[in-house]
Amino acid sequence: MTRIAQHAKKVSASIPTIRRLPSYLQVVKRHMMEGHDVISGTVIAEELELEAIQVRKDLAVTGIVGKPRVGYPVDDLISAIERFLNWDSNFKAVIVGAGNLGSALMGYAELRDHGLNLVAAFDLSENRIGPRANGPTVYPIDQMGEKVRSLKAELAILTVPSPVAQDACDILVDAGIRQIWNFTNVRLRVPEDVLVLREDLSSGFAVLTVLRNVGGQL
Amino acid sequence: MTRIAQHAKKVSASIPTIRRLPSYLQVVKRHMMEGHDVISGTVIAEELELEAIQVRKDLAVTGIVGKPRVGYPVDDLISAIERFLNWDSNFKAVIVGAGNLGSALMGYAELRDHGLNLVAAFDLSENRIGPRANGPTVYPIDQMGEKVRSLKAELAILTVPSPVAQDACDILVDAGIRQIWNFTNVRLRVPEDVLVLREDLSSGFAVLTVLRNVGGQL
Repeated sequence: MTRIAQHAKKVSASIPTIRRLPSYLQVVKRHMMEGHDVISGTVIAEELELEAIQVRKDLAVTGIVGKPRVGYPVDDLISAIERFLNWDSNFKAVIVGAGNLGSALMGYAELRDHGLNLVAAFDLSENRIGPRANGPTVYPIDQMGEKVRSLKAELAILTVPSPVAQDACDILVDAGIRQIWNFTNVRLRVPEDVLVLREDLSSGFAVLTVLRNVGGQL
Repeated sequence: MTRIAQHAKKVSASIPTIRRLPSYLQVVKRHMMEGHDVISGTVIAEELELEAIQVRKDLAVTGIVGKPRVGYPVDDLISAIERFLNWDSNFKAVIVGAGNLGSALMGYAELRDHGLNLVAAFDLSENRIGPRANGPTVYPIDQMGEKVRSLKAELAILTVPSPVAQDACDILVDAGIRQIWNFTNVRLRVPEDVLVLREDLSSGFAVLTVLRNVGGQL
């Protein structure tokens, strides 16, 4: 079992369940905007092409209980999911690497709406240093340890080139970072109490290439 | 079951299995570079913090069989995974939306190494149109339908702002695109024979925010 899966056990939810919750939240919010007061697990399941039993099992981790043949009150359901995800609080983070990918993440309004508070960014390149219109100020990387400490950042989003990923990681961990969202293709070496979530685009690409020749109507 | 999961059944592999194969490939390639001729399922499992039985089950979908107490010949294993993933062939794709995220994907060498052949990009903004040093030429979006047809692109990578995602999708489907890698937060409406894989950063973020307060040693 991966370290992250072991941690997930402590909150009594599997990683796949946690990963599905944001899509449920999106569906429920849309139904609320369309004027609905209640939503059934079956409706959510149909919209997301999942099994209704799966949806109900996943939603149960948030503590909410639906009414048989009626469903969930949308406002209660939204609060329950957001509370479970900790999306109603403020999560201080830094971006390390202010290139295209780092800049794309700075502009990602959805993450900001869910509590991501980008307090600083860092880069090696002189010409990327300075304030940004749509993101945090970019500081030179040699100020990183000090800034991370003084700003009390909890999460680092790592979007540097792979060859410098481990060095950046070491500085971040020394400065007190305990969660790293790793967009590089490096497997980082970290102490036991640091959680690394790797975001690997190759795995999505693999799904596309494997299914490439399957095609046709189902 | 989602449409994509139903398609995965046709290749006798689940989506989670397909998603894990790229990380196995990376581990095996590193072992080959370090001079090893064989690798065991247990070694792969330890490096990726998975169960050995899971790794052996996943690798079986590629048709390879390991030798008990010895493992897999690394060169055979690499070929088997790459063949299963179709990573030994050429996959013509276009990028729709040449902003930060689109530009980041253009520069993603790993995808190129695995057969992704970016034949064109498209954007609405005048100042993004033209040739790129590290990627395909960016064309005005009103040439998209025609270019996609003449270049015979199979895959479209959608990195446009959400409000224009469905419009872009409709043009792409009309032009013959049958796979869409959707980086927007829109659930696209497509005909039955079009596969959409949505890449949702919120689901990774959810894992981090849920595990935020768990912390500590395991």
